[in-house]
Amino acid sequence: MPKHALSVTREDDFAQWYQQVISEADLAEESGVRGCMIIRPWGYGIWERIQRLLDDRIKATGHDNCYFPLFIPLSYFEKEAEHVDGFAKEMAVVTHHRLVMQDGKMVPDPEAKLEEPLVVRPTSETVIGAAFSRWIKSWRDLPVLINQWANVVRWEMRTRMFLRTSEFLWQEGHTAHATEEGAREETMHMLEVYRSFAEDCLAMPVVAGEKSENERFPGADATWSIEAMMQDGKALQAGTSHFLGTTFSEAQNIRFQNDEGQFQLAYTTSWGMSTRMVGGMIMVHGDDDGLRVPPRVAPHQIVIVPMLRDQHEDERVLSYCHELRAQLSQLNAINEPVRVLLDTKPVKAATKRWSWVKKGAPIIVEVGARDVAGGNVSVLRRTSLYKDDGKLASEIMERHDFVDRAATMLEEIQQALYDEARSRLDGSIRRGVETFGELEKFFDEGGKYPGWVEVQWSRPTGAALANVVERLKALKLTIRNVPMDAPAADGNCIFTGDKAVERILVARAY
Amino acid sequence: MPKHALSVTREDDFAQWYQQVISEADLAEESGVRGCMIIRPWGYGIWERIQRLLDDRIKATGHDNCYFPLFIPLSYFEKEAEHVDGFAKEMAVVTHHRLVMQDGKMVPDPEAKLEEPLVVRPTSETVIGAAFSRWIKSWRDLPVLINQWANVVRWEMRTRMFLRTSEFLWQEGHTAHATEEGAREETMHMLEVYRSFAEDCLAMPVVAGEKSENERFPGADATWSIEAMMQDGKALQAGTSHFLGTTFSEAQNIRFQNDEGQFQLAYTTSWGMSTRMVGGMIMVHGDDDGLRVPPRVAPHQIVIVPMLRDQHEDERVLSYCHELRAQLSQLNAINEPVRVLLDTKPVKAATKRWSWVKKGAPIIVEVGARDVAGGNVSVLRRTSLYKDDGKLASEIMERHDFVDRAATMLEEIQQALYDEARSRLDGSIRRGVETFGELEKFFDEGGKYPGWVEVQWSRPTGAALANVVERLKALKLTIRNVPMDAPAADGNCIFTGDKAVERILVARAY
Repeated sequence: MPKHALSVTREDDFAQWYQQVISEADLAEESGVRGCMIIRPWGYGIWERIQRLLDDRIKATGHDNCYFPLFIPLSYFEKEAEHVDGFAKEMAVVTHHRLVMQDGKMVPDPEAKLEEPLVVRPTSETVIGAAFSRWIKSWRDLPVLINQWANVVRWEMRTRMFLRTSEFLWQEGHTAHATEEGAREETMHMLEVYRSFAEDCLAMPVVAGEKSENERFPGADATWSIEAMMQDGKALQAGTSHFLGTTFSEAQNIRFQNDEGQFQLAYTTSWGMSTRMVGGMIMVHGDDDGLRVPPRVAPHQIVIVPMLRDQHEDERVLSYCHELRAQLSQLNAINEPVRVLLDTKPVKAATKRWSWVKKGAPIIVEVGARDVAGGNVSVLRRTSLYKDDGKLASEIMERHDFVDRAATMLEEIQQALYDEARSRLDGSIRRGVETFGELEKFFDEGGKYPGWVEVQWSRPTGAALANVVERLKALKLTIRNVPMDAPAADGNCIFTGDKAVERILVARAY
Repeated sequence: MPKHALSVTREDDFAQWYQQVISEADLAEESGVRGCMIIRPWGYGIWERIQRLLDDRIKATGHDNCYFPLFIPLSYFEKEAEHVDGFAKEMAVVTHHRLVMQDGKMVPDPEAKLEEPLVVRPTSETVIGAAFSRWIKSWRDLPVLINQWANVVRWEMRTRMFLRTSEFLWQEGHTAHATEEGAREETMHMLEVYRSFAEDCLAMPVVAGEKSENERFPGADATWSIEAMMQDGKALQAGTSHFLGTTFSEAQNIRFQNDEGQFQLAYTTSWGMSTRMVGGMIMVHGDDDGLRVPPRVAPHQIVIVPMLRDQHEDERVLSYCHELRAQLSQLNAINEPVRVLLDTKPVKAATKRWSWVKKGAPIIVEVGARDVAGGNVSVLRRTSLYKDDGKLASEIMERHDFVDRAATMLEEIQQALYDEARSRLDGSIRRGVETFGELEKFFDEGGKYPGWVEVQWSRPTGAALANVVERLKALKLTIRNVPMDAPAADGNCIFTGDKAVERILVARAY
């Protein structure tokens, strides 16, 4: 058994392991500001890669980026009761616009109290809806397809880095359409963009489906999600796409003249994905040696670590490394130029190697004087770190051979991470659970990391749904979604005993 | 004389012209939220280009991007008196974290008052300094070179889109160094990055120099700026780089053990550039037909406008346009793939053409059935819109000839915009003004848009400096900077009569 780079394993304590990966991989840290984190260079570099790849897809589907205000007047929220109810409990409110010295202390200046308090945006439907109502006059103006990259604030009582922070970074798409059909198509189209982005770029297999009524976005007619499975068997909602119907266009008066000259309400959608995805990536791909970053989102895909000893040899080693970097930078892998770092920091080579292992760089190449003499490099793939005997699986390769193979190796690593996560997801959804008792038993006896259960239900509403939610809550379970690709129901609801109408996923979740 | 696309000219009313460009070019609009604007797709697209090109330069000089909290506890500011004094009057303060319904109205919940108010960051020296004090232990940790792209809030009483808004977008760099020399080098290095970025990418010539003491960033030992000249002769501070000495490291306790084992304070710097640059670009390059965007920062460099008439011809025109777009997209101009848009919106071709003229797309290509038949295109350069007789200077070119020339044309347009702005700047700085009376006279008689004056001064401090500032203020003038490349002083101070030590630029400014 190899000795691993982290002191806590996933099996020991998943939550503590998660925190350790974040700190050892230099992803983020506590800021000293309640509920807010600092995203460090490696973590932010991954987020920048996510932004770039997702933004390309958002633009390719016809959306334009804009920027809307951070502050939203309280009155904007009052127009949509369900929406404000959903967010009122977690809103940061600006009440003053100046500080003043009082008794030797700086305090908000009582003379500079705002007439109307401003909310720090928790999401931007209201302020973007107000803009839409100005922009949209005629059917010719539709559809309006907008996206925004921004920070938002939801005052969380219990926070966890990347997964639940008071401030987080995200993109929020907002669109308006002439017809219900158009808006529903958009909702599903963006859900598909999220699904394919998660799977193709983050190597994170997901289940796409509609959320149950109780889990809808406040004000939405329907909410769809992609759900990913973490290594502790919990679910993470990784992206959502909302069909908002005419709720917000009624509240914000988004009306247009149709081609027959009549005024009617537009149909709107919104959809978002956030820095939460970095947390998901850790919990899907991390191992007991730290993070493993899928090559497509790795800020550096190949890190070259020169092993330096004395002045004379060092120059030759460094110049060999520079040449290697130049050769690798010419390559393309997965449709982009390969990103290579030559790490020349004044730190011991072994320390550097382990630092890049913990950060999860896909390929680490070590070069010492002996490699230079032999025209070789020593290659370590982050996805196969150890040999059977527990020793490091570094492979001596001829340099030109490595350069020839590097792009393919990156593609293989991307695929290997996906395959591993896919087989875990597919193998950890229990089907055929036909009674609530069986469900209880599964989570009682399913071990530490039990996975998900797919059950059939009759889609109860109102008090009956509230009752289901309560019963699940007692088991710390939630309804994740109604998987789009599940077979039709053919049995009875495990909650009500009525004839089932669809299948739902039930799981513990972040 | 051609009839121009805007109803207000620069000569008529520069301020109103500026607003009209913003609205007619679809750059931004008022949001309904006090002092905050909405940046619309074309404006945000330009900002994204600025981000991309500046970010590449920031990274190429060894800086890493991070993200720090939006909220800063009040106590962080109290540690540095001069800094908090500088910003206290314009700080948005969060005091509550929940809303509650009271008498049928949502209000900040008195039960959810924060123990310590949080300031919405006006700049991040304090919160980043606190992180630096945790990160920096030894000389081996230095330098720390960090950058952040973020929104910041400074509560402005009088706002103007892009130039002065309560919320704005920017990048702020923050670095720490072991030696004063290292920090001073960084300050100057980033000033040079800003200068070359403004000139090479935005085609905006600037004067780089040190700010006078009264214009320093609150808490800085020295502030350097680049100043650009607008077409109304006013100056715009387009980027600043601050040498902070040990002010913030004392306040935040940023100490390290040097190579002799002794503890000492780090030297820090900060530097920033913001969405203000978009405003600067308008006022440097705009004309009476709208904006002219330098090709390097144009979201679309070439816009193809198909002239559609009837079903049968339209298909041929469109397929010709698609081919043209494909050919142009293969080209490289100024080190990047050419960005081409085929505008197929259901709008009349003439309306589209003028819309792209007002937006300032560098090249507009119109294609009608006759062009298709002849294998031609009709090309309009935004920098030479009219012939001498006032008619549009569209040029019929063979399609393959245009494709051959397009990249060069974009380079020529970039250069033409720079040359025009350079000759305006060089021609509008009045030198040889030797008395305060002459200075007064120059601005009294210099016409509507008088430009700048370079004078010699003795660099007074304290009350003497305050007096100079007051005398200038009475003429609505400010000291811009001490140009780095100005010749040594050889006369007397126009304010004090003492022997001059350097030259300064005096101007009206935004």
